[in-house]
Amino acid sequence: MTMSRSRKLGRGVAIVGVGLSQFGAFGEKTTRDLFVEAFQDLLARADKGLEVQDIQCGYVGNFSADRFEGQAHLGSIIADWLGLTPAPFTRVENGCASSGSAMREGIMAIASGLYDIVLVGGVEKMTSVPTAEATDNLAAVADSLYEVPAGFTFPGLYASIARAHMQQYETSLDHLLKVALKNHENGSLNPKAQFNMPLRQMMDRRVARARERGEAEPTWADEAAFLRDDGINPWVAWPLRLYDCAPITDGASCALLVSSDLAAHFTDKPIHIIGTGQATGRPLHDAPELTSLGATRSAGAQALEMSGLSPRQIQLAEVHDCFTIAEIVATEDLGFFEPGEGARALDEGRTARDGDLPVNTSGGLKAKGHPVGASGVAQAAEVYLQLRGEAGARQASAKDLEFALTHSVGGAGGTSVVTVYRRG
Amino acid sequence: MTMSRSRKLGRGVAIVGVGLSQFGAFGEKTTRDLFVEAFQDLLARADKGLEVQDIQCGYVGNFSADRFEGQAHLGSIIADWLGLTPAPFTRVENGCASSGSAMREGIMAIASGLYDIVLVGGVEKMTSVPTAEATDNLAAVADSLYEVPAGFTFPGLYASIARAHMQQYETSLDHLLKVALKNHENGSLNPKAQFNMPLRQMMDRRVARARERGEAEPTWADEAAFLRDDGINPWVAWPLRLYDCAPITDGASCALLVSSDLAAHFTDKPIHIIGTGQATGRPLHDAPELTSLGATRSAGAQALEMSGLSPRQIQLAEVHDCFTIAEIVATEDLGFFEPGEGARALDEGRTARDGDLPVNTSGGLKAKGHPVGASGVAQAAEVYLQLRGEAGARQASAKDLEFALTHSVGGAGGTSVVTVYRRG
Repeated sequence: MTMSRSRKLGRGVAIVGVGLSQFGAFGEKTTRDLFVEAFQDLLARADKGLEVQDIQCGYVGNFSADRFEGQAHLGSIIADWLGLTPAPFTRVENGCASSGSAMREGIMAIASGLYDIVLVGGVEKMTSVPTAEATDNLAAVADSLYEVPAGFTFPGLYASIARAHMQQYETSLDHLLKVALKNHENGSLNPKAQFNMPLRQMMDRRVARARERGEAEPTWADEAAFLRDDGINPWVAWPLRLYDCAPITDGASCALLVSSDLAAHFTDKPIHIIGTGQATGRPLHDAPELTSLGATRSAGAQALEMSGLSPRQIQLAEVHDCFTIAEIVATEDLGFFEPGEGARALDEGRTARDGDLPVNTSGGLKAKGHPVGASGVAQAAEVYLQLRGEAGARQASAKDLEFALTHSVGGAGGTSVVTVYRRG
Repeated sequence: MTMSRSRKLGRGVAIVGVGLSQFGAFGEKTTRDLFVEAFQDLLARADKGLEVQDIQCGYVGNFSADRFEGQAHLGSIIADWLGLTPAPFTRVENGCASSGSAMREGIMAIASGLYDIVLVGGVEKMTSVPTAEATDNLAAVADSLYEVPAGFTFPGLYASIARAHMQQYETSLDHLLKVALKNHENGSLNPKAQFNMPLRQMMDRRVARARERGEAEPTWADEAAFLRDDGINPWVAWPLRLYDCAPITDGASCALLVSSDLAAHFTDKPIHIIGTGQATGRPLHDAPELTSLGATRSAGAQALEMSGLSPRQIQLAEVHDCFTIAEIVATEDLGFFEPGEGARALDEGRTARDGDLPVNTSGGLKAKGHPVGASGVAQAAEVYLQLRGEAGARQASAKDLEFALTHSVGGAGGTSVVTVYRRG
């Protein structure tokens, strides 16, 4: 039997509010503290207020509070800390795509007819252990039988992708650095970002020095130069340097989803979910190719088909840039650029805030930070603000943004979740 | 705003196949091996065959392969090992209710209109670590800030419940043992059960000895006597002895869910999902009472309301007997018996296979085994077989079973999931 029916939601779903905790390293805050902070942000931003007790159900994306903090069963803990018991709360884990998937479960819970008002979110408290241990913990997202025993952690897996992309296409080390520069520039304008200063400060210092000396101010190529310094930006796994890697981050995100017919009770500016897709991919050691993630291609195609849009109609995207190369590959796999053309799009500034397809205006995982379980819904939060024209200093230049997309990846392509949004 | 709409699924969902791995302690088997074994069992039992590629989506309940085996992101790993990539697979974790919740997500995925054919299941590989370490791992399901630092692991939490129940009602140590005896008797007739022999063997040995000596064969009370022996059945956390506790188990379960209109393609004997409920409860340290789990009362009321049935109409139930006291409390919280009357129902044999409400005919978690992530869907598998009259030697006595219920708990009531079934 073959099902040929095209996939369609039983009823419409809209985002009517979002919240983020501060992203960074917060020794004293627990997983639950971070989620509560994100929820308080959502409450504070609610356009027409929110009766907390109206929330009927929740999904929490989390990679492993179990490992980082000894706390599993996080759905019930979060429900308790938000005062929402007995509403059902469920933890969803798909590696670094955990809250991308959590949001998708929330969408289906509403489309199913069971619930009308659903809180989705994600959280990760990662700085409770040393960075090396965090990297080891994250390796559990890869294939524990075939990849980890061979010595792979995620920098190595994505270094393999980067090396293959460089081999197959014109992609260079400088293209990777350009992703970092762009996303750190965006992140420097995002008050919630983990790195909302340092890289910019470094660049400003160079500009100031050049002025003092009466030298020409650095060009784009010069600005990137300090990132080629092995001392400032050491190699992690060749060809990836430190600034090619998303940081270890504590943070939480949440969004309020409601059935579209109820959206006006919460806001006059809802953001509608018009496409959702999710797919698995084979582990990288066994994947048919290294320069493209099959899960992203599949999830992207599903979400775009449901939305009725072509990739060219997407005006803004948040993609999963856990490493700089991942952003380049994502923009190709999602159909924004032809395979191998992602790097040239960077050269042409097409993915900058004033380009024709701004990518990662939030700073991305790279600069905003990557509390892995929180990242998927944090992307949705950025899209919500951008489509409403409320992203402040980092608002994309284009007027009247209407369509946007988010893309979240678990592992090195084991899972991908893509969502398409329309301004209400 | 208050939503008064009663909860209803957008379209009907049926179970058309189930599979279980052997439950037990299997040194050499990994999490993925166990799940594949359960899936092969499902394929072997499929009434009208199954084209594996027809499966569109999957949910895997798992508490912590991450801790037990260093493998997170299990959805994608399982999809890969079943040959189902790129179908989306998602791991769901709600402690010991993980696959109860995974099944519920599968139900919603179909009701949402997005999918028609969904695999749900659960798995836990627990014997990879020593029992004490497994108990410590499981403690992460409790509240890591308030309960674990106070010295609680799950035997202690349920011992508190048992002590309170004994204090408040007529429940005795012997009532707890009667749950163990009943469930081990049932488990001895279940070829998949972890304990499908030992307790029975012990009893048989007693009977044989009595015969040899020409003594009267042991009565029910005598049969329980050996369980009062501190050597055979040592205290774990008073008033709970070893045989009051579900074992540490390796195992996996799965079930195939389809939209009701497609059921006839797969079987002439589908089992329909007519009610689903899920709720959270406050952690036990902060719960308003110890003798009843609010999450179970809430989830049970939701599921029964959706089904249109009263508790009295349920003819068979699999409830979460992680400890013997948990079964007694569950049968009260689900409305089968009045508060405090669960023990008397045991005295009257009402929950035996030939009683008016057989409970845990599979052997329950107590004797079938409790691979925590697998237990919720394993309950559904038992109900599927019982309602179809295919449970073999442990088939409930009543003719024409029509309605049944399953009940899964995460932690000491942090989560509860209840499902109501009707024979097709």
